[in-house]
Amino acid sequence: MQPSSPARPVGRGAKVRAAVHAAALAELVDKGYAALTVESVAQRAGVHKTTVYRRWKDRESLLTDALAEHMATDVPVPDTGSIETDLRALARSLVQAYTSPTGQAVLAAMFTGLPEAAAARRHVFDDRLVRAEPVVTRAVGRGELPADTDPGEVLKTLAAPIYLRLLVTADPVDESTADRAVHVTLAAARAGACGPAR
Amino acid sequence: MQPSSPARPVGRGAKVRAAVHAAALAELVDKGYAALTVESVAQRAGVHKTTVYRRWKDRESLLTDALAEHMATDVPVPDTGSIETDLRALARSLVQAYTSPTGQAVLAAMFTGLPEAAAARRHVFDDRLVRAEPVVTRAVGRGELPADTDPGEVLKTLAAPIYLRLLVTADPVDESTADRAVHVTLAAARAGACGPAR
Repeated sequence: MQPSSPARPVGRGAKVRAAVHAAALAELVDKGYAALTVESVAQRAGVHKTTVYRRWKDRESLLTDALAEHMATDVPVPDTGSIETDLRALARSLVQAYTSPTGQAVLAAMFTGLPEAAAARRHVFDDRLVRAEPVVTRAVGRGELPADTDPGEVLKTLAAPIYLRLLVTADPVDESTADRAVHVTLAAARAGACGPAR
Repeated sequence: MQPSSPARPVGRGAKVRAAVHAAALAELVDKGYAALTVESVAQRAGVHKTTVYRRWKDRESLLTDALAEHMATDVPVPDTGSIETDLRALARSLVQAYTSPTGQAVLAAMFTGLPEAAAARRHVFDDRLVRAEPVVTRAVGRGELPADTDPGEVLKTLAAPIYLRLLVTADPVDESTADRAVHVTLAAARAGACGPAR
């Protein structure tokens, strides 16, 4: 690395990564999961196919990486000093992410029943969980939640009613959905219902 | 109606209905949502196509009716005199229904992203809610839950983590999933988190 231009090679790589991610998401929204190819993503991103394959081994790993990155950007992990406001921020940004036009298209593309999409869903969801766990561990540290609280269970309890409405009941999903999810999750977590399995 | 054979016409109609329902479910499991036709269901049930159209106006209404009936049979509405044991019975039979081979096939067929399947999902879920609501209203009557508890919210809170695992995370779904859902739901409902939106 040359001290005179330290950020350049990293910057270039990050730009390619961002361009390919954006192209993958746009292709997913336009064409759906099954029809998306590495070739079409590379073309849309204005890079050579081999540039994509150098960074991602196949279209599945490219797509799950793009989706995980997209969710990480759209649903940032808050640190407000209170579990209630942290969970509210998380739930509201999850609702916003999935009710935007892109979010709706991503959701439709991801829930097509394809086995490959199932693996991508799991990967993206697991990535979300790992990123957001500190919200719960910090709350346990502050004494807001019981010591044996399972962070994953708290976050799944928060997300579950939002996904139920998005995927099953087709009820409207809005801020009040998010706030109710927070209310339910806090009551459950404080009562010890998000601890280890009994 | 003739007093000497009161049940006969009803019995015949009910048999046809049951045969067509069973055939619709079997076709759904074998061929999926998109490929199922009224013709194929009629043939499998051993009845004429017009017999099916006399009772159901199209394949969508036939399918949603068959699925709602299937869920109503597989997930009976309990009345044990206690909200905890009622919810546990409901959650455990929901888990059993969806983890059986038929349930897994039904789930895969229903969640294909087709708009028609979305309408069927909503209809089947709404039917489940209406049937199970007495579980909650009886508990409110017994003073086990706050007076302003919304039965639909309680039942959605119970179902949400089970559907999250079935549709998103692909975590194992078993009795402990059901029991945790009950624990979470009871804590939330008792704390007033399943009341009217705030």
